[in-house]
Amino acid sequence: MLSTKAYAAPAASVPLEPFNFERRDVGPHDVLIDIQFCGVCHSDLHQVRDEWGGSVFPMVPGHEIVGRVTKVGDHVKNFKVGDIAGVGCMVDSCRTCPSCQEGLEQYCETTGMVGTYGGVEKETGRPTYGGYSSQIVVDEKYTLKVSEKLDLARVAPLLCAGITTYSPLRQWKVGPGHRVAVMGLGGLGHMAVKLAAAMGAEVTVLSTSPNKEADAKELGAHKFVVTKDAAQLKSVRNYFDFIINTVSAPLDLAAYLNLLRRDGTMILLGVPPEAPQVHAFNLIGKRRRIAGSLIGGIAETQEMLDFCAEHNIMSDIELIDIKDINEAYERMLKGDVKYRFVIDLATLDN
Amino acid sequence: MLSTKAYAAPAASVPLEPFNFERRDVGPHDVLIDIQFCGVCHSDLHQVRDEWGGSVFPMVPGHEIVGRVTKVGDHVKNFKVGDIAGVGCMVDSCRTCPSCQEGLEQYCETTGMVGTYGGVEKETGRPTYGGYSSQIVVDEKYTLKVSEKLDLARVAPLLCAGITTYSPLRQWKVGPGHRVAVMGLGGLGHMAVKLAAAMGAEVTVLSTSPNKEADAKELGAHKFVVTKDAAQLKSVRNYFDFIINTVSAPLDLAAYLNLLRRDGTMILLGVPPEAPQVHAFNLIGKRRRIAGSLIGGIAETQEMLDFCAEHNIMSDIELIDIKDINEAYERMLKGDVKYRFVIDLATLDN
Repeated sequence: MLSTKAYAAPAASVPLEPFNFERRDVGPHDVLIDIQFCGVCHSDLHQVRDEWGGSVFPMVPGHEIVGRVTKVGDHVKNFKVGDIAGVGCMVDSCRTCPSCQEGLEQYCETTGMVGTYGGVEKETGRPTYGGYSSQIVVDEKYTLKVSEKLDLARVAPLLCAGITTYSPLRQWKVGPGHRVAVMGLGGLGHMAVKLAAAMGAEVTVLSTSPNKEADAKELGAHKFVVTKDAAQLKSVRNYFDFIINTVSAPLDLAAYLNLLRRDGTMILLGVPPEAPQVHAFNLIGKRRRIAGSLIGGIAETQEMLDFCAEHNIMSDIELIDIKDINEAYERMLKGDVKYRFVIDLATLDN
Repeated sequence: MLSTKAYAAPAASVPLEPFNFERRDVGPHDVLIDIQFCGVCHSDLHQVRDEWGGSVFPMVPGHEIVGRVTKVGDHVKNFKVGDIAGVGCMVDSCRTCPSCQEGLEQYCETTGMVGTYGGVEKETGRPTYGGYSSQIVVDEKYTLKVSEKLDLARVAPLLCAGITTYSPLRQWKVGPGHRVAVMGLGGLGHMAVKLAAAMGAEVTVLSTSPNKEADAKELGAHKFVVTKDAAQLKSVRNYFDFIINTVSAPLDLAAYLNLLRRDGTMILLGVPPEAPQVHAFNLIGKRRRIAGSLIGGIAETQEMLDFCAEHNIMSDIELIDIKDINEAYERMLKGDVKYRFVIDLATLDN
């Protein structure tokens, strides 16, 4: 067993604190990763607060993990000691159902995917613990290759925020000629802007605050619409092919659905606490659609990392010491971060 | 001007009564149709009661029209006196916008489609009056060809109920290997069963009432699920590729969305008075979609009529005298019709 340092939430809605636990030994197909950076995702906070139900404590959050391989199992083929590796939202799945076979392990139909934290580790039957920790043991099949050339702290958020926005953009074949709107300029939203722009689409940020315009343009947005301004909103009525909706706050969907042109699609990535109402007229009158999307499969996550390396796309981050994680959560709740907190695990010294 | 007999609602929620008005003269591109049959659509009732707002009275409802051509304008190319012709939900549109150019006139982006009733007739600036009448004058571009071989009373409902279900089945390429569920076994639902089965899909009717099973099977359904039976409902969890939702009553969508497999789509055709809630989790977890669809374009309506003639598909109807229309509305509200009332216009004798 591998003695591991971490920060954990001892119970729901209690501040995170230092925590020590043991990782499983490195099996024949496993890699051991010395974690260098871990992004702080909004879903970490949802789960620490048990807002989705089913949280298991103590909880070590974190599923945007980048680090260096320090040991590999006897049968590992694709990683060697010294490689840079990444781990995203899942560390296993059944591997045999149709979704797993199609490379869509996130939709695993039998056991469901095994979350990087809050899941049950198949090898041991114990809870999985995430990336707010010094090291992690993961089957190489669920481990990603990361280019050493990039700023690794800025790569970490790609493992969740990056793939969560990349996957639907690819699924819906977004590219040149498409008009894409992004709702919510946070961790997911700022990646959606960068990725959609890199894929050749015209990107518009929809925001309630006029003061985000300069930031939006800097991220690569071509247009900016203040949604509280009725005239601006009207100017993009029936305009967009896609709306990437990353908002997890309560929301009047109807006003936004009307911005979609005929056959336009709103892609839901955020989960508001209250289920929004959808009036059938808003969809029927223009043959519009609402779709969901959940992270991406392992092969697609690798493709996304390679795409980002090729286009020099990384997250805009604020690097923090792990002792500041509880304060970071408070700031994240207020939207006070551009655009992702990333923990420097070198600061972990329980 | 052409003196025309009809039944009209003089005001919102008032019983229909005999009404006489004048149709425009037959223009160079028009056909005059002696109406033989007109289906009674649930949306007639919504509009007579002004439930969607914007109704104009007196209102002559009816947009499932079949009859015989009795006169054609000088420039009419595709119809001659004596032909059987049909008219559906629209009699005009701008003809120049992208949607009109693509044959999707129902989504006309400038003027919107001109409804067969309750619209504004371009030639005269007056309200359009529908098919609960002795005759109608329509531009041949918005007139459909109907095979004389079919039972014309049973063809009438194809002009709305038929195309409304046919269009999304085609748009989503439904065919062999697909599992299609139909919610709501009324005018739309019974056509969805017949059409989806004819296209080669496995069809399941979802119903709250166990006593509809024999009828569903007779219409061509392969399976029947009583949705109030928890075990039956569970047996089709994550099962369907498509759910054709024709229900216009208040509805808990979540329970039904969970019956869709990964990448499955619920197609909304009915408009419940209260907008249902859609929880993002129900879509995200299986990459499911909700889509709307509105009737179909003129070319697609012709394609549907030809498909139905080829496969001998017609609506199951109850033929009524026009004086019984108000009673038919009451029965329709209770779901007491298998599955469409059709007015025999020979009974119109104001």
